[in-house]
Amino acid sequence: MKKTKQTKIKVAILGATGAVGQRFITLLANHPWFEVAELVASERSAGKSYGQVVHWLDAQPIPEKIGALTVKLPSDKLTSRWLFSGLDAAVAGDIEADYAKKGHIVISNSKNHRMERDVPLVVPEANADHLEAAVQQLSVKHGAIITNPNCVVAILAAALAPLHQAFKLTKVMVTSLQAISGAGYPGVAAWDLASNVLPFIKDEEPKVEGELAKILGTYKAGQGFSNADFKVSASCYRVPVLQGHSLSVSIATQKKASQEDILAAWRKAKVCPKLPSSPKELIHYYTEACRPQPLLDVMLGDGMTVSAGRLRKCSVLDWKFSLLGHNTIRGAAGGAVLNAEYLLWRLQNMATKPCIL
Amino acid sequence: MKKTKQTKIKVAILGATGAVGQRFITLLANHPWFEVAELVASERSAGKSYGQVVHWLDAQPIPEKIGALTVKLPSDKLTSRWLFSGLDAAVAGDIEADYAKKGHIVISNSKNHRMERDVPLVVPEANADHLEAAVQQLSVKHGAIITNPNCVVAILAAALAPLHQAFKLTKVMVTSLQAISGAGYPGVAAWDLASNVLPFIKDEEPKVEGELAKILGTYKAGQGFSNADFKVSASCYRVPVLQGHSLSVSIATQKKASQEDILAAWRKAKVCPKLPSSPKELIHYYTEACRPQPLLDVMLGDGMTVSAGRLRKCSVLDWKFSLLGHNTIRGAAGGAVLNAEYLLWRLQNMATKPCIL
Amino acid sequence: MKKTKQTKIKVAILGATGAVGQRFITLLANHPWFEVAELVASERSAGKSYGQVVHWLDAQPIPEKIGALTVKLPSDKLTSRWLFSGLDAAVAGDIEADYAKKGHIVISNSKNHRMERDVPLVVPEANADHLEAAVQQLSVKHGAIITNPNCVVAILAAALAPLHQAFKLTKVMVTSLQAISGAGYPGVAAWDLASNVLPFIKDEEPKVEGELAKILGTYKAGQGFSNADFKVSASCYRVPVLQGHSLSVSIATQKKASQEDILAAWRKAKVCPKLPSSPKELIHYYTEACRPQPLLDVMLGDGMTVSAGRLRKCSVLDWKFSLLGHNTIRGAAGGAVLNAEYLLWRLQNMATKPCIL
Amino acid sequence: MKKTKQTKIKVAILGATGAVGQRFITLLANHPWFEVAELVASERSAGKSYGQVVHWLDAQPIPEKIGALTVKLPSDKLTSRWLFSGLDAAVAGDIEADYAKKGHIVISNSKNHRMERDVPLVVPEANADHLEAAVQQLSVKHGAIITNPNCVVAILAAALAPLHQAFKLTKVMVTSLQAISGAGYPGVAAWDLASNVLPFIKDEEPKVEGELAKILGTYKAGQGFSNADFKVSASCYRVPVLQGHSLSVSIATQKKASQEDILAAWRKAKVCPKLPSSPKELIHYYTEACRPQPLLDVMLGDGMTVSAGRLRKCSVLDWKFSLLGHNTIRGAAGGAVLNAEYLLWRLQNMATKPCIL
Repeated sequence: MKKTKQTKIKVAILGATGAVGQRFITLLANHPWFEVAELVASERSAGKSYGQVVHWLDAQPIPEKIGALTVKLPSDKLTSRWLFSGLDAAVAGDIEADYAKKGHIVISNSKNHRMERDVPLVVPEANADHLEAAVQQLSVKHGAIITNPNCVVAILAAALAPLHQAFKLTKVMVTSLQAISGAGYPGVAAWDLASNVLPFIKDEEPKVEGELAKILGTYKAGQGFSNADFKVSASCYRVPVLQGHSLSVSIATQKKASQEDILAAWRKAKVCPKLPSSPKELIHYYTEACRPQPLLDVMLGDGMTVSAGRLRKCSVLDWKFSLLGHNTIRGAAGGAVLNAEYLLWRLQNMATKPCIL
Repeated sequence: MKKTKQTKIKVAILGATGAVGQRFITLLANHPWFEVAELVASERSAGKSYGQVVHWLDAQPIPEKIGALTVKLPSDKLTSRWLFSGLDAAVAGDIEADYAKKGHIVISNSKNHRMERDVPLVVPEANADHLEAAVQQLSVKHGAIITNPNCVVAILAAALAPLHQAFKLTKVMVTSLQAISGAGYPGVAAWDLASNVLPFIKDEEPKVEGELAKILGTYKAGQGFSNADFKVSASCYRVPVLQGHSLSVSIATQKKASQEDILAAWRKAKVCPKLPSSPKELIHYYTEACRPQPLLDVMLGDGMTVSAGRLRKCSVLDWKFSLLGHNTIRGAAGGAVLNAEYLLWRLQNMATKPCIL
Repeated sequence: MKKTKQTKIKVAILGATGAVGQRFITLLANHPWFEVAELVASERSAGKSYGQVVHWLDAQPIPEKIGALTVKLPSDKLTSRWLFSGLDAAVAGDIEADYAKKGHIVISNSKNHRMERDVPLVVPEANADHLEAAVQQLSVKHGAIITNPNCVVAILAAALAPLHQAFKLTKVMVTSLQAISGAGYPGVAAWDLASNVLPFIKDEEPKVEGELAKILGTYKAGQGFSNADFKVSASCYRVPVLQGHSLSVSIATQKKASQEDILAAWRKAKVCPKLPSSPKELIHYYTEACRPQPLLDVMLGDGMTVSAGRLRKCSVLDWKFSLLGHNTIRGAAGGAVLNAEYLLWRLQNMATKPCIL
Repeated sequence: MKKTKQTKIKVAILGATGAVGQRFITLLANHPWFEVAELVASERSAGKSYGQVVHWLDAQPIPEKIGALTVKLPSDKLTSRWLFSGLDAAVAGDIEADYAKKGHIVISNSKNHRMERDVPLVVPEANADHLEAAVQQLSVKHGAIITNPNCVVAILAAALAPLHQAFKLTKVMVTSLQAISGAGYPGVAAWDLASNVLPFIKDEEPKVEGELAKILGTYKAGQGFSNADFKVSASCYRVPVLQGHSLSVSIATQKKASQEDILAAWRKAKVCPKLPSSPKELIHYYTEACRPQPLLDVMLGDGMTVSAGRLRKCSVLDWKFSLLGHNTIRGAAGGAVLNAEYLLWRLQNMATKPCIL
């Protein structure tokens, strides 16, 4: 990767003023391979400098160069080939498709294209081989869309992939305790979460159930994607926590596993190659009784590690445990950046077969 | 019940300064049958007036008469036959047993005796017939212990009893999102719940699993209690909410039920006789997408109604739904008061067979 | 008031779907004098039934009759003479003025007309005599606007009026810790108040300083309103509390007062006549060290009592203390309803000079 | 300081299991001059390894070497000369005095000795010259106690010192919105801060008023400390925020200052020498309307910078503004470490007159 280190690839951010767009900017601020050169947002912001229009959410200030960029419109021609999209689902569908048709590589965090038959939905540590669908497309045309999943699935897939590979999952039940930031900004009203729990998140449960099956399913050139055939049941709650989704998970597996088997599968879980956004540990297991907790553990591995704890027998299925992940890093912008890194690495190493988990 | 209305039964509160003890005082303040006459607490408080020693938690001030009462020690002789116990589990075991031996009727919210083979564990709407174990004891000796379950189980049992009766449960999975007040006072540190979730509550999951099976099991005179034989798996979380446990529940049943079957079973659920603390509705089902919520719904039926919502198919078990209940009323002191009311009614109507749900 | 008890006055709510509009509906649900007959909201809601369009915020369900009413537009002719306005400030100015011109009595909670030279700004317990400005207008034309102040001022004026009358205030400093609900719905984003404090509320400090001076100033027929001439300095913060503004107040007075003098002035504070929404106590003083608190005390007097505590010497000014009031009842809709009650009583007792505090 | 970099000074932590003790461990984990070698706690912990007994509060795990240390008793002989004390006030008085008598340099965060006539109370950027009192003591005996102030004063003194020096303060009014962590661990019950504000913090207001006057007062060898003669009035509230005290401050000055004068005084504020824990900026002024906020700004300068904003005219005093500081870093352990660094630097540079702000 010597070359890319010297000349970084210029990229654009679509939906740059939103919560995910801002996170892209933060994560790419000192990235070794990519450099933010263009920002795209809605008409309300276009034509003005980014620093003027954004309601900046992060504790770290806006990188100076970025604040001075003039915001462009989705209809504007972009010079960057690589686009990172944090567009709102209300508009992402057409805009992303248009850019892909024009030859852009669209790394999208939006839900719109995730379940399409020619669009890979990827968590690199779980199904990097699905990216081959995009590699194939890019071999015949210039553009492609690569998506990362819903924030709950991003966390879940990372922890379940090694278990599915080793023991074959048959059933998955998950109740999520999701953070405020998962709803974007302004998102949930403070009024609704003052000492309260919301038992419903619009469209969330079908996304969790559908996307998990696609990611842990298979991809074969010529045949496309096939869903995994385990059953998934998700119940999604919103809780008064700023960052970090907690998941209460129960699973059944075809091949029976001991507690130590599961811990070993998690310990061995890794992605190669080692990419700039890869965490040192994919899954960190806590032996303490009351971990992982959002307040303490959400930033582990710079927000890219999935934390696990409380692995114990389930009297209805086989095993149950608690997961925690950073919903706007591992679960959104960080996952998308990892996808871009993996794709770039793959395109530059076409001779080498990527080592998939 | 004309007589009891005229001359109220004097009762004592054990553990009167704790969170549950205080709730007993509030709930019995204008009770038609019972009147608080004695307060028992630890050595730290004994000998002083209640108003001086209690750290009062409720918005409503301490009833004047109660504030002036002198606090007694657990070793003191009590003139009240009926005792309501909110004692801490660390001391409740021996103290309650001693009082029962001395001929007192101990209505206990503590966990210590719940699973004993001769102690009824009761949610009247679910298993009022289990109280017969106490009635039997009281026919041969003077004292008895009657317990109500853990706060999660109190809510769960009320909602599951009509389903178990109609469709026979085979599997129950529950993830609880439990309120701060469930841990008593001072309980959880604010530091630990500032924008945080705790994935573990000490001893809670075994309690939920064990107590639910006892309550929905059977009691036969001479043979005692038999556990229900469905499987229960509980995962308990603490969330930053003051009052109201939210439960994410999935069930499988032997006899398959439609959505309307389940709603009908809930609508028909009722206890007779109508007791002073019985709610108008045992289970209130919300058709709105994002209900029940603690902030809005916890006080329904003065905290004695269990709220339900989001009944929908579960792709792993049969059905899933969300429950909400007031953990310190339905789930603690209110449940205990209802037990006392039911027992008193039963003792005064020995000729009549109680109408069990 | 015998007559009004028999035939209630039909009223309309302007801005009926907003947080203040909803509170009007709740407060007037069983009002002895007024009855909600018409609801007005924006085009988005007009023509539909209220129950369909409102995002209802209260734990108590929408009164059935109200839910069935068809929402009208601000341009629609209203049959009710009395209008209660919870309109957003962005539109309240013209709409309220138009209705007043057409002969309606507009009881407004909006900020737009508060500081106008012919509009009374009233907290009945503080300056009921200012309502004479409206009585005068109503003697020559049919319409008038009567306003109640900003939520902070509503609380502050109630507590300071008796002190100003007895000791003449010269300086007032206040730092407010304002609740989420003060910003309306959806108002503040949960993201912004997750374990956070916001040190700025747009336009709030000038409102507090200006409105307090008008209310504690004088009104003379023919001469109009004159501001009180003490100095007011306000610093307004938003804190993660749902209901109840806490105020840290320091005052200096011309006539020096002892602690007992101040407590006595508060004890004697009352409004006569006794109106349906008048609290039993206007100011309740807590002797406990750590009161008043929003969680415990905000609903005192059904949200119409102002709570005070911690009266102690101030080493910079003379005295300092803590106040608490319900920002959407005493501080908004409840204050407006009290204004309407006072005005109605006054109009029906023209011969009698109203007894002003 | 070349020498100290090579051989670090071994230090002990008193009260090592408490919240402040833990913060000392974190802050000294990679300190260039000091190295934690001994840990002292109460009998409950003594004799066991630190990792076993501590309820660790930080996201970063316990440094490995520290976790393995055996905890000592306050009566044990310590080999470290330098002690950092986070002892609880209930025991700090005697223990710290004893250690000082035995020849230890006690860098104390506890309140007990702060106001004593021979003990310096220091915020280096405000009154580093007060440390000369300790330097003098150390020239005749081996031990001394050096204290840092209450968390509110630590923030306030840093921001007010340059203003007092430039314009001479005559009056200071402050209302604090204090964080949960300021009460230590477990500290405040979650029950008490669920959507609530507490208007009272035991003993806090007199501490703020007294300690500020001592710090901004003078020290002269032979004459000791003289308090500054401005008037201070403090009102202290607890709010549901984990880290970061917000202060609403109003001041009057003898020499009148323009807004730019004040901003210039803050910009120029600095301490020399530059010590390991000195922030790059002592006071950072935000021009944005709604800053500083705890959630965004508390970690500025690794928690050692004081943030300021909203400087505007006060109609009662002269100017008002908002401050924010990290209560357990700048306001506690970080301030104490800075004191230790300053004292060490001073002792090693006796020939040089320290350059005081």
